[in-house]
Amino acid sequence: MRTLVRDVKGLLGQRVELCGWVHRIREMGQVSFILLRDRSGIVQLVVQGGAGFTVESVIRVQGEARAQERAPGGVEIEVASIEQLASAESPLPIQVNGKLDQSSLESVLDNRMISIRNPKILSIFRLQSDILDLFAAHLRSEGFTEIKTSKIIGTGTEGGTGLFELDYFGRKAFLAQSPQFYKQAMVASGLERVFEIGAAYRAEKHDTPRHLNEYISLDVELAFIDTEKDLIGLEKRLLAAIFGGLAVRDEAILGDWGAGVPDPASVEAAPTVSYDEALEIVARTGSRIYELNPEAERILCEWSAREHGSDLVFVNDFPRKLRPFYAFPKGSGTQSFDCLFRGLEITTGGRRINDYPMILESCAVFGLDPASIADYLSIFKYGCPPHGGFAIGLERLTQKILGLPSVKAAALFPRDRRRTAP
Amino acid sequence: MRTLVRDVKGLLGQRVELCGWVHRIREMGQVSFILLRDRSGIVQLVVQGGAGFTVESVIRVQGEARAQERAPGGVEIEVASIEQLASAESPLPIQVNGKLDQSSLESVLDNRMISIRNPKILSIFRLQSDILDLFAAHLRSEGFTEIKTSKIIGTGTEGGTGLFELDYFGRKAFLAQSPQFYKQAMVASGLERVFEIGAAYRAEKHDTPRHLNEYISLDVELAFIDTEKDLIGLEKRLLAAIFGGLAVRDEAILGDWGAGVPDPASVEAAPTVSYDEALEIVARTGSRIYELNPEAERILCEWSAREHGSDLVFVNDFPRKLRPFYAFPKGSGTQSFDCLFRGLEITTGGRRINDYPMILESCAVFGLDPASIADYLSIFKYGCPPHGGFAIGLERLTQKILGLPSVKAAALFPRDRRRTAP
Repeated sequence: MRTLVRDVKGLLGQRVELCGWVHRIREMGQVSFILLRDRSGIVQLVVQGGAGFTVESVIRVQGEARAQERAPGGVEIEVASIEQLASAESPLPIQVNGKLDQSSLESVLDNRMISIRNPKILSIFRLQSDILDLFAAHLRSEGFTEIKTSKIIGTGTEGGTGLFELDYFGRKAFLAQSPQFYKQAMVASGLERVFEIGAAYRAEKHDTPRHLNEYISLDVELAFIDTEKDLIGLEKRLLAAIFGGLAVRDEAILGDWGAGVPDPASVEAAPTVSYDEALEIVARTGSRIYELNPEAERILCEWSAREHGSDLVFVNDFPRKLRPFYAFPKGSGTQSFDCLFRGLEITTGGRRINDYPMILESCAVFGLDPASIADYLSIFKYGCPPHGGFAIGLERLTQKILGLPSVKAAALFPRDRRRTAP
Repeated sequence: MRTLVRDVKGLLGQRVELCGWVHRIREMGQVSFILLRDRSGIVQLVVQGGAGFTVESVIRVQGEARAQERAPGGVEIEVASIEQLASAESPLPIQVNGKLDQSSLESVLDNRMISIRNPKILSIFRLQSDILDLFAAHLRSEGFTEIKTSKIIGTGTEGGTGLFELDYFGRKAFLAQSPQFYKQAMVASGLERVFEIGAAYRAEKHDTPRHLNEYISLDVELAFIDTEKDLIGLEKRLLAAIFGGLAVRDEAILGDWGAGVPDPASVEAAPTVSYDEALEIVARTGSRIYELNPEAERILCEWSAREHGSDLVFVNDFPRKLRPFYAFPKGSGTQSFDCLFRGLEITTGGRRINDYPMILESCAVFGLDPASIADYLSIFKYGCPPHGGFAIGLERLTQKILGLPSVKAAALFPRDRRRTAP
């Protein structure tokens, strides 16, 4: 009967069986100390003689658990028997038991199959798993239904960014850049409140610490809103729930990364400024910036932290020409918003047009042929409530929570312009 | 302040505000009866004079809630004011307030943006949302971590089925047919227990009620197992948790479909038979079937229901030539299994090879060039514990729970050989 490392301290004086990886070896002649790593932690084994194994080999040991002040966690195992379940060649292509700063991100990603064993790297994805859980749990608590929509689309019409093209049984198809049309259809279906956790694809040639060509989009859409401020309110509740959950579940990981999550009061205190006000705030710093670019996003977040004690800032009233054709107009602007978090845009959202004549007019303004998006337009032709939504980039949120230098570090197997493996 | 339909019965005699879709209209001259549909249910409105709206228009009404025996749910709203939020053109491309058998599946899917408003069709996806939640919740309770892996892969080497080809910045890439290699890497990372909910792609020209070219795969992988029987045990616990949860949460939907879920005892009672035994059971019925084809799957499930009182049957010990190169050998067979549910294979799984020399040998047997899968093989070169896993097809599971005629009916926006829209 296997015991997990985290449970050993409750079994002092007893014989236990442990399984895991040989994390580190220190041979002292008559005795060897092995750090054994399993999914729950690391414990010291005391073995008579040499270790007999390479680092990363997988072993099963039996022995007595006992207190040992100088060992990690204050316990060790006096090993009675040891069995090798799998051997590891030596040397490893990348060290997995050392400090991270010894390896560049490129080297970590090139060797992802092995570098992911580094407990600190792996902890990024333990925390990410909790984000997924907390995101879904909060939305379910507010009456949302989870949906799964196709990522293969026959026509690419949302406009703007590039699409990856696919050979679909001899015909052209594309990878969806968002579930936008589908989540609107599902709001109009009568579900009213939906969310989707799914991949989104952008065939953009950017190669920056902010961009991935494939990422996980946390999509939210809901009906019967008045303005985008209802959406900002929802995102605040949602982020507060995620941050609050992580603070409890992942205290050790956050500590290990020297990171923290905003408390609920500072999420609530996040200011909302219009696009024009945002540019004014940036201009007041003396910066010669006339658009909401990455530098402006950093300046705005510094301003929010200084003036409002919040790591978040919402920007609304974006000009119409900067938003998609389905954004709900408000004068020359739109009822749309971005959410910036610690210097990075993590969310774009807004109220959508729900009126059929209005969306036809917007197609004309944007030069879109209504016939090319007839399926989408039928949502509005046959009765669609006022609605809106937003999407949070999972990797960007993870990156900014932990303070990672690149969004690529927050994707298990990131895809960028050059990288399609491993 | 909006009230949901489901809460009206607790507010008799009070003024309420409701929002929703005009589900059905009955004009009686001096008075009209409108069925109003929101995300929580349907309620009758009593309006003086004509209705003034088309079916599927979206309205906001205020009025007094009162008991009315003859109305659905025993309540109705005496409407004082009514406001149209969005109008619907008439006629609809497909009726949404009628019985399902009036529309063929093809017509339902061609008009998916509107047909999804049919409450019975929509209920399929309410239940599917609960499957997603219950699947993840059970695995988290057993210490599993959720992962998200790339669906774009540089080389297609898992073998067997076809791959969709992609233009990735001028280079060839493919859509992953499963997260197999990645989930094994994440088991070996030290997480030990992982699950992924993600799309899987099969460029197969099948056009049957059993096949989709894009589907949601509920993937599970875990370390430190002895044989595939540990996996069958886990799948039984997992299915029992899903079925048990659905029985409580979706009693009304199951009733509406005339469907039910297996009880925990009958899941536990599901027999496991070897591949050879399975063919013998099929042969005893006089069928001239010499492989585990769809007809054989139906016969085996009838046998299991009759002899074991279970809607499930597990088949293990598949011949090596019917399984991928990474299946763990057992004589001339493998430590692998299928799970059949109500006549359909919903799961393939098994123990995987974890030993480096053994996987190299298997590459040779299957004619695979180790250099082409060097990243994958590095998992085993550097120490990988005994492990295995399985995947459940979300749409097949949904189909068989509700008794749908085709798996396509259980995908919101199904992709088949001809269909890439809507």
